[in-house]
Amino acid sequence: MAKQDRAIRTRQAILEAAAAVFDERGYEAAKLSDILRLAQVTKGALYFHFDSKEDLAHAVIDAQVSVVPTAPPQISKVQEFVDVGMVFAHRLTCDRVLSGSVRLTLDQGGHELNRSGPYREWTEINLRLLTAAKEGGELLPHADPEEIAPLVVGSYAGLNLMTHALEGHRSSMERWASALYHHLLPSIVVPSVLTMLDLEPGRGARALGVSENGS
Amino acid sequence: MAKQDRAIRTRQAILEAAAAVFDERGYEAAKLSDILRLAQVTKGALYFHFDSKEDLAHAVIDAQVSVVPTAPPQISKVQEFVDVGMVFAHRLTCDRVLSGSVRLTLDQGGHELNRSGPYREWTEINLRLLTAAKEGGELLPHADPEEIAPLVVGSYAGLNLMTHALEGHRSSMERWASALYHHLLPSIVVPSVLTMLDLEPGRGARALGVSENGS
Repeated sequence: MAKQDRAIRTRQAILEAAAAVFDERGYEAAKLSDILRLAQVTKGALYFHFDSKEDLAHAVIDAQVSVVPTAPPQISKVQEFVDVGMVFAHRLTCDRVLSGSVRLTLDQGGHELNRSGPYREWTEINLRLLTAAKEGGELLPHADPEEIAPLVVGSYAGLNLMTHALEGHRSSMERWASALYHHLLPSIVVPSVLTMLDLEPGRGARALGVSENGS
Repeated sequence: MAKQDRAIRTRQAILEAAAAVFDERGYEAAKLSDILRLAQVTKGALYFHFDSKEDLAHAVIDAQVSVVPTAPPQISKVQEFVDVGMVFAHRLTCDRVLSGSVRLTLDQGGHELNRSGPYREWTEINLRLLTAAKEGGELLPHADPEEIAPLVVGSYAGLNLMTHALEGHRSSMERWASALYHHLLPSIVVPSVLTMLDLEPGRGARALGVSENGS
């Protein structure tokens, strides 16, 4: 294995271990020693890749969008917009970096952390797809992508938080995402498109063309 | 002032100070010494009313529903359901106990805290009003209060969290709540009721019959 490959794998191992520890304990209570133990790397290796616990937390937060597979292009841009949320929910139960990133993003403590990145990036992705849907005549005349994109991102975040507070895990997010789209889209999408959409739980896996248990 | 009155006022002063400190710093970082200083009470007075920091945090969490004025009865139960959220948003910017309670409820750290109370209570209140609306013929045939009530509570929580993460305060919640109802209700409410609803920012104050700045 070339030196560079090894460095990339070490960085990834640290990122995954950090995400797992942040997910379990939150930012403040997470200890670098636990991350080192889980990643099976030395303190020197960690500081070669990351400056501090804060830097590591930002790397986990910022990885959120990149670890979710891109929803494959669809003829209906509304379906692609829905798929973004459904693929996210599908990955949430099996991707430790995603789960840790969501935990950090939804936390409110640790004021030195900037959590706005994922909110802005998901809003940007949704806005792009909704704007394309609007241009393609898929949206009702009054539907405003600039309002709908952040509305969906914020609502989605809260359903995620609520399901975790009530159930201690996030595995019902596919069901909640489905309910959210079912109730929001009739005020946004033209009826002829609405009837063609797949909004049901399991859509994330179907959009990716994988079995429901993973890849 | 009778002894009992004084005890009630002391308890309230401690609760308000605790809410302010929790709101500012979160549960873990909040110090009892800061709460004592802000409330201007002795440690003995605090321990007369509350067993521990945990007990105090639960009192703040559990006060959430009671510090929001009850939305006055309306002929339309859908309007009353909307008013619950709009009155909440209206109070959020001026009631320190509410703001501190929301902060603690939306946090994920401090695993000893049970944050499910407000989610369950708001869901219960919304469910009661949506069920009455359904019985009164205000909802579309397929609308399911059991699904809609938690969907709205979770979405609302997330918009609250997002606006705080992006803007550092919660003052745009009236606008977000208005957008949420505008986009959700067309799939839930019969058109003849829909056109009669007041869903605009400022509705919280109007429902309470107060000026927009408070009482």
